[in-house]
Amino acid sequence: MTLWKKNYELDKSIEKFTVGEDYILDKRLVKYDCIASIAHVGMLGKAGILNTSEVKRLRAELNKIMALDKAGKFGIEQSDEDCHTAIESHLTAKLGKLGMKVHTARSRNDQSLTALRLYYKEELKETENLVLELIESLEAFKKKYGKTVLPGYTHTRKAMPSSIALWSGAFLDSMDNNLEILGSVLKLIDQSPLGSGAGYGVPIKIDRKFTAKELGFAKVQGNPIYVQNSRGKFEAAIVGALSQVMLDLNKIACDLILFSMPEFGYFILPRKFLTGSSMMPHKNNPDLLEILRGSYHVVNSYEFMIKGIAANLISGYNRDIQLTKGAIMKSFDISRESLGVAIMLFDNLSVDKDACMRGMSKEIFATGEAYRLVEKGVPFREAYKRISKGY
Amino acid sequence: MTLWKKNYELDKSIEKFTVGEDYILDKRLVKYDCIASIAHVGMLGKAGILNTSEVKRLRAELNKIMALDKAGKFGIEQSDEDCHTAIESHLTAKLGKLGMKVHTARSRNDQSLTALRLYYKEELKETENLVLELIESLEAFKKKYGKTVLPGYTHTRKAMPSSIALWSGAFLDSMDNNLEILGSVLKLIDQSPLGSGAGYGVPIKIDRKFTAKELGFAKVQGNPIYVQNSRGKFEAAIVGALSQVMLDLNKIACDLILFSMPEFGYFILPRKFLTGSSMMPHKNNPDLLEILRGSYHVVNSYEFMIKGIAANLISGYNRDIQLTKGAIMKSFDISRESLGVAIMLFDNLSVDKDACMRGMSKEIFATGEAYRLVEKGVPFREAYKRISKGY
Amino acid sequence: MTLWKKNYELDKSIEKFTVGEDYILDKRLVKYDCIASIAHVGMLGKAGILNTSEVKRLRAELNKIMALDKAGKFGIEQSDEDCHTAIESHLTAKLGKLGMKVHTARSRNDQSLTALRLYYKEELKETENLVLELIESLEAFKKKYGKTVLPGYTHTRKAMPSSIALWSGAFLDSMDNNLEILGSVLKLIDQSPLGSGAGYGVPIKIDRKFTAKELGFAKVQGNPIYVQNSRGKFEAAIVGALSQVMLDLNKIACDLILFSMPEFGYFILPRKFLTGSSMMPHKNNPDLLEILRGSYHVVNSYEFMIKGIAANLISGYNRDIQLTKGAIMKSFDISRESLGVAIMLFDNLSVDKDACMRGMSKEIFATGEAYRLVEKGVPFREAYKRISKGY
Amino acid sequence: MTLWKKNYELDKSIEKFTVGEDYILDKRLVKYDCIASIAHVGMLGKAGILNTSEVKRLRAELNKIMALDKAGKFGIEQSDEDCHTAIESHLTAKLGKLGMKVHTARSRNDQSLTALRLYYKEELKETENLVLELIESLEAFKKKYGKTVLPGYTHTRKAMPSSIALWSGAFLDSMDNNLEILGSVLKLIDQSPLGSGAGYGVPIKIDRKFTAKELGFAKVQGNPIYVQNSRGKFEAAIVGALSQVMLDLNKIACDLILFSMPEFGYFILPRKFLTGSSMMPHKNNPDLLEILRGSYHVVNSYEFMIKGIAANLISGYNRDIQLTKGAIMKSFDISRESLGVAIMLFDNLSVDKDACMRGMSKEIFATGEAYRLVEKGVPFREAYKRISKGY
Repeated sequence: MTLWKKNYELDKSIEKFTVGEDYILDKRLVKYDCIASIAHVGMLGKAGILNTSEVKRLRAELNKIMALDKAGKFGIEQSDEDCHTAIESHLTAKLGKLGMKVHTARSRNDQSLTALRLYYKEELKETENLVLELIESLEAFKKKYGKTVLPGYTHTRKAMPSSIALWSGAFLDSMDNNLEILGSVLKLIDQSPLGSGAGYGVPIKIDRKFTAKELGFAKVQGNPIYVQNSRGKFEAAIVGALSQVMLDLNKIACDLILFSMPEFGYFILPRKFLTGSSMMPHKNNPDLLEILRGSYHVVNSYEFMIKGIAANLISGYNRDIQLTKGAIMKSFDISRESLGVAIMLFDNLSVDKDACMRGMSKEIFATGEAYRLVEKGVPFREAYKRISKGY
Repeated sequence: MTLWKKNYELDKSIEKFTVGEDYILDKRLVKYDCIASIAHVGMLGKAGILNTSEVKRLRAELNKIMALDKAGKFGIEQSDEDCHTAIESHLTAKLGKLGMKVHTARSRNDQSLTALRLYYKEELKETENLVLELIESLEAFKKKYGKTVLPGYTHTRKAMPSSIALWSGAFLDSMDNNLEILGSVLKLIDQSPLGSGAGYGVPIKIDRKFTAKELGFAKVQGNPIYVQNSRGKFEAAIVGALSQVMLDLNKIACDLILFSMPEFGYFILPRKFLTGSSMMPHKNNPDLLEILRGSYHVVNSYEFMIKGIAANLISGYNRDIQLTKGAIMKSFDISRESLGVAIMLFDNLSVDKDACMRGMSKEIFATGEAYRLVEKGVPFREAYKRISKGY
Repeated sequence: MTLWKKNYELDKSIEKFTVGEDYILDKRLVKYDCIASIAHVGMLGKAGILNTSEVKRLRAELNKIMALDKAGKFGIEQSDEDCHTAIESHLTAKLGKLGMKVHTARSRNDQSLTALRLYYKEELKETENLVLELIESLEAFKKKYGKTVLPGYTHTRKAMPSSIALWSGAFLDSMDNNLEILGSVLKLIDQSPLGSGAGYGVPIKIDRKFTAKELGFAKVQGNPIYVQNSRGKFEAAIVGALSQVMLDLNKIACDLILFSMPEFGYFILPRKFLTGSSMMPHKNNPDLLEILRGSYHVVNSYEFMIKGIAANLISGYNRDIQLTKGAIMKSFDISRESLGVAIMLFDNLSVDKDACMRGMSKEIFATGEAYRLVEKGVPFREAYKRISKGY
Repeated sequence: MTLWKKNYELDKSIEKFTVGEDYILDKRLVKYDCIASIAHVGMLGKAGILNTSEVKRLRAELNKIMALDKAGKFGIEQSDEDCHTAIESHLTAKLGKLGMKVHTARSRNDQSLTALRLYYKEELKETENLVLELIESLEAFKKKYGKTVLPGYTHTRKAMPSSIALWSGAFLDSMDNNLEILGSVLKLIDQSPLGSGAGYGVPIKIDRKFTAKELGFAKVQGNPIYVQNSRGKFEAAIVGALSQVMLDLNKIACDLILFSMPEFGYFILPRKFLTGSSMMPHKNNPDLLEILRGSYHVVNSYEFMIKGIAANLISGYNRDIQLTKGAIMKSFDISRESLGVAIMLFDNLSVDKDACMRGMSKEIFATGEAYRLVEKGVPFREAYKRISKGY
């Protein structure tokens, strides 16, 4: 049963096509939708649309659904379309006519956006936590190996002396910047869509500030058309931020894939992280680093998926935008898993000091030599020319 | 159990991370992997590596796996990593030491590529069939409504007289071109990777032409490094072709979303294709067209996912490339479903002749007027100026 | 002459290939490079590497270059490679050995990044100013026409009553959010790269805080490897922010292209904004809106270009990253021009009140009718069903 | 003066915005537009719209324009909008009323598409020629160094024995496939758009087959709406093919950047290809390889740009599509330059046989050892386990 049931039947194939993966993806939204409905029901009570007993009974039932969901026992069928319908159907089955009142003063549009935005906020905070954990791992790694020298490269060629401290410090700073980026996005999206209806408000007096506060939003997203128009826009901002994190993990992976090659040997990956080959008995492969490297591109493409879907559409809700749901959920999942792997990585990574030392060959010091001449009064460009003759 | 089991354990989280969705996605490869193994086993027999009885027993067991799979009874566990491991484990469980011989003279790399390429070929052919079906639907639609006039637009403004025949003919021609495009890609990838090992051949004499022929490949993909390097390249070509089909469906959707608006009313969507709103009782929404329109962007982004993953990698197998598997499978699924919907659409779409006629307002004929002057000898640019004064 | 001249000649074709468009693009960096060099020279003076007279003479000459550049008289040849070389060559030609000292304690890497970052900051501020101007235009437009009713659409179908105030308010809110987004990025990149050398510092004591302060940066970007690694990362963040602005302009364009069609006529574009056809004498085309719509995709692809170039690269400078320069410059240009056009648009756009009123057909009020029943005590879902029967 | 001059003036800023870079990009289309006009004029003669003398005079003048253009003396001003207008204006200036007849029976839409398609065909053929030249260079390189052994890598780890012959053979095969891909696209687009007008034909009898034959097109692109709809579609196919070539060059660059590091030293880049650093006197950087590697992403993003611009648009001409012109022209330029550099590269690249030999360390032969056991009758999986113990 759908929320918009009419006196004709939707063609089954069309239903399947339009529902798509929603009924699967929505499993992780049940919790947020119940939380939002609890606030919404409270507001309806305050507005005199529901009486105290009705509010109580609806909230109790919504809490039961959350408990069922937590226990893995709340299912969503393809014919339900999505979690919102499944929940309303459940309420109506349990509470009769009262269930039919829960949708008063809202549309599935603002309902769905509210659940999603609560989900985004929680995921973003979780991502921030993982970035903080990675910072801790990096700090510990830096403390342990920081003093070790390391050849610094430019153009994939030896350039100047570096160190493990400098190298890991670069990622510490990038992760600090990522926290800024994630924080900005979290602030941007922290606006309550609830009460904006289908994009043109609801033809009845409601208290949007009340639900916004109940749900912990920093403010009400006032303009109902903008609530709709910001879908896709906010999602792009979120996945853009995640892909910034992933870009740094991509670089970590690139550095480690290269410099843990036996030909360099600066870094040593723990054996339990390495995989073998089905054919070559000697192989110890850094699959995890390669998947980490490649995962950036997956998240990056999801950003562009969202940014493609959201364009060339007029104001107001367009169904296309629903296709962004899978993209953003997968982006969160991949980012969290990748951060988790990166944390484990630095907790287990070791450095071969001797190999690093062997890497510090003569040319690494050429720039320093030129500067010794500068200190003796030779103009830099001349000092440079003198030293360059040896290479 | 993995195909590369060693005397140490891979960290469980790392295993989960590197396996990713492979064990789920691979369900649809079981069939193709069995087919490829049957050919491989035959080749091993011919080469004297297996004796006739061994070949027979392995083939029988592989056929049983295919039957199990068809009945939905062949499972792949996360700990299996992928279908290849699950199948070899099954063979070893059933046939003991004989099972341990099946992997002779191949690597999981070429094995996996072979299964994928057989899968690609079948999917491409299925896509071609659906394009052919769509052509039939379009032809029937054109036959039924072709003579109806229709305002032709440029810049989303009325331009010149058109007709349903002209409009549907445009898509017939684009679908013909799509068949060309799909055919070229099918021809491109029709090369057998089997026997290329892990990208550097196998250190034993094998007959690659035999397996290529058995499996219906047009030729052997000779250079084993290129077998690896072409992964990502071929996938990009395939999804590029699919996204060409999707781009045309995107345009069909755009035309129909606009011109089935009551404000135009040229096209009428059957009611059973329309969905409602949870809040607005009057709505009849063309969700299916919107999902069709948006799905182009999904497939397009998968193309760029593949093209991002495949770049900046050295020759030879890199694990990143495995992340393209989900992208290509989803692209096939979406394209097939979208074509299916488009076929149903044209089978059920109707045209409102009166609305079309009403749309033929005066300005549509302005160019014709100018040409009447040209026929009387007025230079075109002058005729144009004269007529333009009325607008 | 290049900054790294050696005792052999670079192949001319290779030079042309690697220099690419840099010598053209760099024209707009001359000013910023001179400003940065003035600060750098001051720092060298403070550090005792240059004496007071040397600092004075170099600064005077750098000011002359800025004046020449402002007058369009400072050229950069292809053989110069870039603005940095052209400027150093000029200094050496004018000041002899003294010119050869200016590059002390820096690399072209940090020099180039400093000029770019000053350029980015100025461009971002200019973009913010234009967004503010657009907000003013929107406010004036809203003040003038706000009270006019307008049909609100969802799924490109009439939904509920809207108004010009609501519609323009949606873009006002999105532009406010864009200011937040641009501000976050400006804050992110406001770090001085000067003094980080080629990514591994300079082998001589320098005062990075001094130059950072002189140049108006909020802080020093401390880790020199991160200075390099953040290239591409910051550029992606910037173009990501610009593409957020462009996405909203894309939606404005979509709304206006559709609703200024004579078939709707809600909005009226001024005639002087419309273009004609070479063949059809009656045409008045909204090319500017179409270019505005399409320009989003151009900027969006430049973001993807940067994010593709920057990936799968090890830490430290890689020349690939230089290819991002054109992408970001063009993104700034397009965004500024598009905002300029959008401002003009709202300054000249008018609304046809009668057409808007005619658009308010019966179905727009169906939801309101349902809510009248709700107010009489009918559960919402039942009210919905009753009203839906009429449609 | 524009081709659609009316009795009002287009706002100057809007003109600048909508013309964009067209007047610059179109410089390379002058030749093709003249060729197409010569054929068109011939057709008008055949149709009796122009008399023999008129045809002769127009053709003579068009030939003069081609000569002027070849000598770099045919300018296009921003106020001309594009080459088509500049050419028609020139004809009218020289030939008076006769010039005003040349645009009879065509629109700027089909005119522009014809010039572009002739340009595409020539560029594609030139690209094919360069691929053929690269194949020659690769063959010569293979002949010279083919027998040298080379460690084969998977997962950026030593895997099995390879050779220069095998390595260069991989690129030979990929270039063969690229020829197939380019050929398919050339065949696809080899359709004459001339005579399709603005997408709805011309209201006068013309002979499209005549012009198609004159211009060397394989056939007429019959449906005029499809002529318009295929814009963007064909461009995407072309840039998709170019990006396939670039992906292989990207891999060549990746292999050579890595394996020409002194730490491996398998390949030796000629000194005249290497660039230095402004600060580090010892550096010899492979900038050309890095630009080659990065250029893939530029072309790839242009494909995405085109595919973004072309979507979510209704049938018939939309001005957005004009923004694809720069993207495709730059893609051709970059691809040709990159192929040129790759050819030079293989003409000058050398191999250090000793370094290659030193690279053949023990583990490279592990798989061979396992197969020696297989030949003695040990089941492969057991042989694998035995050998793996040593690693």
